[in-house]
Formats: sequence, structure tokens, C-alpha cells
Amino acid sequence: MQNDEVQIRQLVATWLSATKAGDVDTVLSLVTDDVVFLLPGRAPMRKAEFEAMQRTQAGKSGPKIHGSSDIQEIQVAGDWAFLWQKLSVTVTPPGGEAVERAGHTLTVFRKVNGQWRLARDANLLSPVQK
Amino acid sequence: MQNDEVQIRQLVATWLSATKAGDVDTVLSLVTDDVVFLLPGRAPMRKAEFEAMQRTQAGKSGPKIHGSSDIQEIQVAGDWAFLWQKLSVTVTPPGGEAVERAGHTLTVFRKVNGQWRLARDANLLSPVQK
Repeated sequence: MQNDEVQIRQLVATWLSATKAGDVDTVLSLVTDDVVFLLPGRAPMRKAEFEAMQRTQAGKSGPKIHGSSDIQEIQVAGDWAFLWQKLSVTVTPPGGEAVERAGHTLTVFRKVNGQWRLARDANLLSPVQK
Repeated sequence: MQNDEVQIRQLVATWLSATKAGDVDTVLSLVTDDVVFLLPGRAPMRKAEFEAMQRTQAGKSGPKIHGSSDIQEIQVAGDWAFLWQKLSVTVTPPGGEAVERAGHTLTVFRKVNGQWRLARDANLLSPVQK
């Protein structure tokens, strides 16, 4: 496996562990300044809105978030790369019931000053029926 | 605008016009053999399933499909490229009412024998309430 691919896999692993730990600063260090998150039924989300959402979630009354990724493909082309993955995210509000969303993401990365960062993300997750 | 970007914009325009015309062979000529379409709530769709769906839609009793694209960004890196776009698709079954879906796609292209083709697509369109 080439070094770039290893670094991108590590980024995904760090993303999931930092999200679980509520470590917003680490999550923010993994995205580009011009990051764009695309989701169904809403306007694209940029970095400021993403940060606000992350800080709300990481607050004391925020939910626990556990994500599990199964990377299907990584392609690297110079300072750009993309992957698609199966992703499952379980969100448990304090005292509430766990809600699972699952599906795929198609995610684009860019190398900035030698570090891979998440740059564009299309999140296709939908609720899992129990 | 660099030549690659012009060719990718042309591909998107051809895709929309061929879809409207029910020209399945042209649409199929625009995708790679290993194309993957990602959609919410279902398994990834590969070329054989995509072709079957296209041929059903293009049949005599199939719907009219009108798409309108507003490309937000194109990035080219060697033989790979990606774009994201606002996309609106109106599907009108024969004798039925038009249904509009709108939202974004994040789409990856690959240059194969000098021709850009659609290689991976995340479709985030959702129904538009009237």
C-alpha cells in the first residue's frame, strides 16, 4: 500500500476516534479551510457551520457518536485523492435511544503542506430500520 | 478554462441531452466499465444494473426525463477529476404528473484513452415539495 493511502486511512481512523471522544479541535484539523459537506435535502455545509455543529454535539448534553468505516476504494492523483466507504454511525443522546444511520460516503481529500485533509464529502447515510 | 474542464462540462451537457432523448448507448459511452453509482438507502449500482435501468426508462412506456445542472466546481488531477453540481431532475411518466428531485452530486471522472468518463457518482437528490 502506498504511503498516501496509508495516511488517508489513518485520517479516517483519527476522524472516527476524535468524533467519538468529542475532540472537535482534532476533527477540525482534518479538514481543509474550503471544505464542503454535501447532504440530501439541504444546502452545502462549509467549515464555520460544520465547526458550530461539532461544538454543539461535543457539549456536555450532546450525544455519543460511534462510527464504523469500511473503505471500499482509495485513489490518489497527485495532491488530490478520493475514497468511497461503507459507513455506519450510531448516535445516542444522553438518556435517549441509539439511532443508527448507514450507507456510503464519497469523499475527496487534498494534500495541504504535506498533510492529507478532507476537502469534499457527499454523505448518503440513511436511517436504519430496527 | 483548461481543455480538460471544457471536456468534462461537455460530458455533463451530453449526459443530460442524451438522457432527455432516451439515447441509452450515448449515456453508456460516457461511463467507465467500473462505474459506481452511490445513492441513499440502497446498494451501490454498477454498470450492468445502470444499463438495465436506463433501457427500461428509455422504453416506449418510460418517463420523460429533463435534467438541469449548475456546476459549482471542477478539479482536474492527472487522469482523475471531480466536480460537484446542483442538479434538478424532472421525471414525467406517460399521462402522469411530473416529479422533481433536486440537490447535489459529487462526481468523479477518469480519462480513458484520452476521453473523460464518469467513474463514481454520489447522488444526493431528494424530492422537491410543491
